[in-house]
Amino acid sequence: MSNLRIDLDRLMDRIQRLGQVGALEGGGVCRLALTGEDKAGRDLVVGWMRELGLEVTVDRIGNVVGLRPGETEGPPVMTGSHIDTVATGGLYDGNLGVLAGLEVVETLNDAGVTTRHPLAVGFFTNEEGARFAPDMMGSGVHQGALSLDDCLATQGIDGTTVGDDLARIGYAGEAPVGGFRSKAFFELHVEQGPVLEEEGVEIGAVTGVQGISWTEYTIAGTSNHAGTTPMRLRHDAGYVAAAIATTARQIARDMGGDQVATCGVIELEPNLVNVIARGAKVTIDLRNTDEAKLQQAEGMMATKLRELAQAEGVEITARPLARFEPVDFDPAMIDLVAETAAGLGCSVKRMPSGAGHDAQMFAPNCPTAMIFVPSKDGISHNVREYTAPAEIAAGANVLLQVMLSAASH
Amino acid sequence: MSNLRIDLDRLMDRIQRLGQVGALEGGGVCRLALTGEDKAGRDLVVGWMRELGLEVTVDRIGNVVGLRPGETEGPPVMTGSHIDTVATGGLYDGNLGVLAGLEVVETLNDAGVTTRHPLAVGFFTNEEGARFAPDMMGSGVHQGALSLDDCLATQGIDGTTVGDDLARIGYAGEAPVGGFRSKAFFELHVEQGPVLEEEGVEIGAVTGVQGISWTEYTIAGTSNHAGTTPMRLRHDAGYVAAAIATTARQIARDMGGDQVATCGVIELEPNLVNVIARGAKVTIDLRNTDEAKLQQAEGMMATKLRELAQAEGVEITARPLARFEPVDFDPAMIDLVAETAAGLGCSVKRMPSGAGHDAQMFAPNCPTAMIFVPSKDGISHNVREYTAPAEIAAGANVLLQVMLSAASH
Repeated sequence: MSNLRIDLDRLMDRIQRLGQVGALEGGGVCRLALTGEDKAGRDLVVGWMRELGLEVTVDRIGNVVGLRPGETEGPPVMTGSHIDTVATGGLYDGNLGVLAGLEVVETLNDAGVTTRHPLAVGFFTNEEGARFAPDMMGSGVHQGALSLDDCLATQGIDGTTVGDDLARIGYAGEAPVGGFRSKAFFELHVEQGPVLEEEGVEIGAVTGVQGISWTEYTIAGTSNHAGTTPMRLRHDAGYVAAAIATTARQIARDMGGDQVATCGVIELEPNLVNVIARGAKVTIDLRNTDEAKLQQAEGMMATKLRELAQAEGVEITARPLARFEPVDFDPAMIDLVAETAAGLGCSVKRMPSGAGHDAQMFAPNCPTAMIFVPSKDGISHNVREYTAPAEIAAGANVLLQVMLSAASH
Repeated sequence: MSNLRIDLDRLMDRIQRLGQVGALEGGGVCRLALTGEDKAGRDLVVGWMRELGLEVTVDRIGNVVGLRPGETEGPPVMTGSHIDTVATGGLYDGNLGVLAGLEVVETLNDAGVTTRHPLAVGFFTNEEGARFAPDMMGSGVHQGALSLDDCLATQGIDGTTVGDDLARIGYAGEAPVGGFRSKAFFELHVEQGPVLEEEGVEIGAVTGVQGISWTEYTIAGTSNHAGTTPMRLRHDAGYVAAAIATTARQIARDMGGDQVATCGVIELEPNLVNVIARGAKVTIDLRNTDEAKLQQAEGMMATKLRELAQAEGVEITARPLARFEPVDFDPAMIDLVAETAAGLGCSVKRMPSGAGHDAQMFAPNCPTAMIFVPSKDGISHNVREYTAPAEIAAGANVLLQVMLSAASH
């Protein structure tokens, strides 16, 4: 069994074929959740599931699960991800995890292997959150973290609701949600960051998902002439905006470890070369794998900003945009991923995920882990997203072996 | 003679009547250079000049000068400013200096005073630069700093040229430009800054005009995911933009004195909360009254930015937007303003101007100084611009007395 390997050509062929559904001219794909392109992609994958003999069910939020019976009944060892994309997405984000799951099944079918526990491969509705908020919607409902009724009623950027669009594309299923139990959950995914490539490592054994804290700061200062206003009489919203950004960087530097801090948005008003800004807007994105440290970073920001506001004589208003606690994956499953990868001759790094994934919804309810493969130049959510075939083979073989292992006892 | 005082009611009446030409609903005025409103304002002021017996000439760039003969021939002691405004201007910027000059003349007329040297009151075309660049155009041509032909051919924001618009409004005069000599030049102007009001001082004896250095920095970094990209692998154009702004502030703080530094523009690309910016644009406005110190500030910026670019692995491109050397007014004329004001019982502060004025064009060619009166809340280029009548009276009386003094020997 430990000598079983997936068929890379077959897997790459499915990745390319699914990538043609909603393909963008010049590369990449646009298959936004619950659009006609999503329906076409779903139909293609469901067809493959049926060809592989999986028992397909569609639940009320449109998640699709294909079950492969084992020698015993009971909760399956599950894998899966999503097939929806952002508007200018790549071929790998999400899709790789779903299609690698099918490849695991086909490899076992070809080898005539029946596992002790059942296996399941799923894809979850609206992981990206590009048309409907929040993201990770299908897996969230599936694992009881989000309300089915709320999600069905959610209106998206096109004015339609999730419920309407599910019915329209024929994926408003009958299966209940919120009570699904898995024996374990694994998700193979592209890293979407530069670490594995930069360090020349083949497999990431993902230890958890960083907690996220997004805050928008609005600064109210006083507009004045850049020439005639002495420094001591300024209430410069633009300077404070910049100082918030450099403060966030300084906090990440001082804390070190996994702490990251990003100022992605700065807007000044009136934004003219010779006018001291009367107003500004800044966003700060703080992430850490450790909730206590994330709170420490938030506290340091708040303290520093009070000092800044007082020193410059401006008002800073903070509006929380998003807040998620970190998710820890199961230590035994992380070990299983790391040891399996090493056993297959792969270099391995234990690392957190900086982005959210469907797997984090499973983590509170069953032993969960993720497998990362490198992203060229760390690029994702971009038509240039790329992971080399050999790296995909390594990741899919790790997935095959950890599922076999988890399903065997 | 030293007991002569202007008539405040008459001056305020002219300010109000000129302020009705191009008046904005709710207050303020829009009298952009060489528009129909400017023509109407010019016609009104020229009418007043003629009523006061001034010999009016219009030169080829549309500057209007009203001459009041003295006992002797020769260069006049001149005063003046501008009557064009920005799109949302106030009643005082420019207008005060012109109308106070007329009030000086009318006061002398009423008292039957003939000065030894001639007097002149002028208003100069397009000081604001709001429709046509550069600003201070009329006084620049008048004093030989700008080319007449270039300025006449200048196309403005409405697509017309200065020459066309001068002809259209009937102010393409016959008088030559570039050879006008004054015995001295004085300009009364609102401070357009907060210093006099903040310090409770009535009269500013302006020592010169700050030198100006404007630079636009374009930063080329790498866009990446705010969660998945470790701090050490970032090339964050947004962080560097913010650090440029805080560096400018730090330089002003370290240098002290008159040095001011403003970051008025920050723009990030793509400007999203969870995306490390790939690009950014920042402007820095540096000003100092001392050319050597201004160069020192520029040098400190350049050094610090090289360090920043190297540390973050981004490219910073600097584009100069504007550069003017500081202008020093005449020490004897500054003393005259300060001593005259003190003699009139006014509190006086010697101070530089942070904004450009027509007077700076005269400074290389004749003894020149300016008189500042307070601007409420430091506000100008704004419909809320305000200087109290008593402050206006003080400034106009200083103008009257310094002109009398300069014209007497």
